Amino acid sequence: MLPMMEHEAKALKLLGQNIRKLRRDMGLSQEEFAHRADIDRSYIGQIERGERNIAFVNTLKIARALGVKVSYLTDGIE
Amino acid sequence: MLPMMEHEAKALKLLGQNIRKLRRDMGLSQEEFAHRADIDRSYIGQIERGERNIAFVNTLKIARALGVKVSYLTDGIE
Repeated sequence: MLPMMEHEAKALKLLGQNIRKLRRDMGLSQEEFAHRADIDRSYIGQIERGERNIAFVNTLKIARALGVKVSYLTDGIE
Repeated sequence: MLPMMEHEAKALKLLGQNIRKLRRDMGLSQEEFAHRADIDRSYIGQIERGERNIAFVNTLKIARALGVKVSYLTDGIE
């Protein structure tokens, strides 16, 4: 991943934390969640740790798997 | 871009329309906006037409250039 600004790295971390919290609230393991979202498990781990500059279509897949709108995932991110 | 589901293509179109509307409301040309967001002008055009699976960091840059939160850009997208 290209170097990014500190606020961008922080925003990706917040997004990942939001996703991890929702997944855990649903009682799903990363593996179960990855299967449900049709995304590779290792990729889910990287997203939750804010290590990936996730593409929009993957945020859609994740939001659907969590039963929320995309805007809910980005709540609180500036 | 890989083939995508119809709802994903539709979501990208909606995102692009939201961005275009906000940009026009600010009275900015694509070129002025691209400069402000530090994103290539041709890329802005593709995003506004929903032709790009935009990465999260670019939605952050666009939201900042428009003076809104990312969640505002994804308003109404399921």
